[in-house]
Amino acid sequence: MQTPKWHKYRVTGDKPCSLRDYPTTAQIKQPDRDELELMLRKCREAIATEQNKLYAEGKQSILIVLQGMDSAGKDSLIKHIMSGVNPQGILVHSFKHPTSQELVHSYLWRHYLKLPEKGQITIFNRSHYENVLISKVHPEIVLAERIPGIDSVKDVNKKFWKQRYEQIIDFERVVIQNGTQIIKIFLHLSKNEQRKRFLERIENKEKHWKFSSDDISERQHWDQYQAAYEQAISHTSIGRSPWHIVPADDKWYTQLIVSHIIIDKLNDMNPKFPPVSSAEMDMMRMARERLEKE
Amino acid sequence: MQTPKWHKYRVTGDKPCSLRDYPTTAQIKQPDRDELELMLRKCREAIATEQNKLYAEGKQSILIVLQGMDSAGKDSLIKHIMSGVNPQGILVHSFKHPTSQELVHSYLWRHYLKLPEKGQITIFNRSHYENVLISKVHPEIVLAERIPGIDSVKDVNKKFWKQRYEQIIDFERVVIQNGTQIIKIFLHLSKNEQRKRFLERIENKEKHWKFSSDDISERQHWDQYQAAYEQAISHTSIGRSPWHIVPADDKWYTQLIVSHIIIDKLNDMNPKFPPVSSAEMDMMRMARERLEKE
Repeated sequence: MQTPKWHKYRVTGDKPCSLRDYPTTAQIKQPDRDELELMLRKCREAIATEQNKLYAEGKQSILIVLQGMDSAGKDSLIKHIMSGVNPQGILVHSFKHPTSQELVHSYLWRHYLKLPEKGQITIFNRSHYENVLISKVHPEIVLAERIPGIDSVKDVNKKFWKQRYEQIIDFERVVIQNGTQIIKIFLHLSKNEQRKRFLERIENKEKHWKFSSDDISERQHWDQYQAAYEQAISHTSIGRSPWHIVPADDKWYTQLIVSHIIIDKLNDMNPKFPPVSSAEMDMMRMARERLEKE
Repeated sequence: MQTPKWHKYRVTGDKPCSLRDYPTTAQIKQPDRDELELMLRKCREAIATEQNKLYAEGKQSILIVLQGMDSAGKDSLIKHIMSGVNPQGILVHSFKHPTSQELVHSYLWRHYLKLPEKGQITIFNRSHYENVLISKVHPEIVLAERIPGIDSVKDVNKKFWKQRYEQIIDFERVVIQNGTQIIKIFLHLSKNEQRKRFLERIENKEKHWKFSSDDISERQHWDQYQAAYEQAISHTSIGRSPWHIVPADDKWYTQLIVSHIIIDKLNDMNPKFPPVSSAEMDMMRMARERLEKE
């Protein structure tokens, strides 16, 4: 299987990112069904094999940050690429509106609580980045956080956002320095594809539960969201936790690309079954003798 | 596919249970590889389909309590029957030795915290039952809980255990009454099969990390553990949360039986995509008009 060239979707951070420079579609022909299924199965198997070692090793972990507009395919991506992985080593957290308990802490608190344990892969389905996305489009959300000195939307200014990007970078740096690799994925959807998917949800009774009136009202802010994403991605694509702007209009392609980003990261991390000390080897030798005599 | 007759492994609770009355092996011939793989795939698909509805419905949930001696196959069972389910709706918690923070609370506290959210399936890989299993074999563990009136192992007597079984029954009753179904599985392994599996772990370098000296020392207490299981199962197999004593020597059979117990439970629960109110239907009609005009 030829590895799809996903590196072109990585944001290097050396200049401000413009979403228009990144495609929302695959730009290559879809393989036939059997071939595609085989490719995706191999991806799932590769992830499962490495994840098993990661879990056994118990030292490193992975945080996958998944962001995108409504209907960009976050849920479906998780389902398709992560079914097949041992559920013991994978956790998905969907961050919704903060609860009243979460609101009496600073905005990063609930994300800290859900960071992966050693050996685990955790997916943030929406993440700490919502605090520079939806909060940027609707700055009144920030007021609910009751931050000293932030008393009106006027205080939620350029300086405020700059500080918040830096806080997020600091948060991620500490996480990375302590053994967690971060993979940041923005599912890049076109406005027209969102329109199609919304209409499909309305047509399909089994998808009605996924549709809310918020979806339509947020669509009115499309351009503001795209701008908020551009700024967030530009400010936080640094060093060892770059963003990936992955085409999201063609779900099969999104699955392949994201799978390969994860596989390559796992290969880089190169988790190993833990070594056995000579004391443990002795213990096992004694245990074997004892068991064999039974 | 013919459904394996799993009902014979359910403990009705009308008389004390004796583990000797339950087989540890399949007692039927293993299907050929392709047939078995097909059967298991169909199981995984059935679980995935119903779990998807459970998640959408967001009202009910399932707690799977998984217990068994070391090497009974808990980890492998989770991997084989639950890979394929959307990781968004499934969570596995492995309860190890309680942490110091957990020990300043009562023993059920940490289990309460990990109960499934509405729409989810949660697996307790080892569970609150350890408090009447390992704690029964090693009563000094109870002293570390610092319970008023329990000052020496002499206080950890018959009356104490009777009270604890009742506490567990109460805990589970409240959980069930609030929408969580509980499936309790004891993986019934023979002593000889454990011996074989321990030797295999010692032989296989990739399995060394799963072996600890505790495994061998706990094996010395085999009969005490079996007695503790018999008593726990006898006292807590009631009403809507019976135990299942599932043969564990043949892993393929364990997987089939447990899959079918879960599938039948999901079918009983009959989760449904949530109904849409007439106000929501109106909202969707307006949304469709708006989108179509774009």
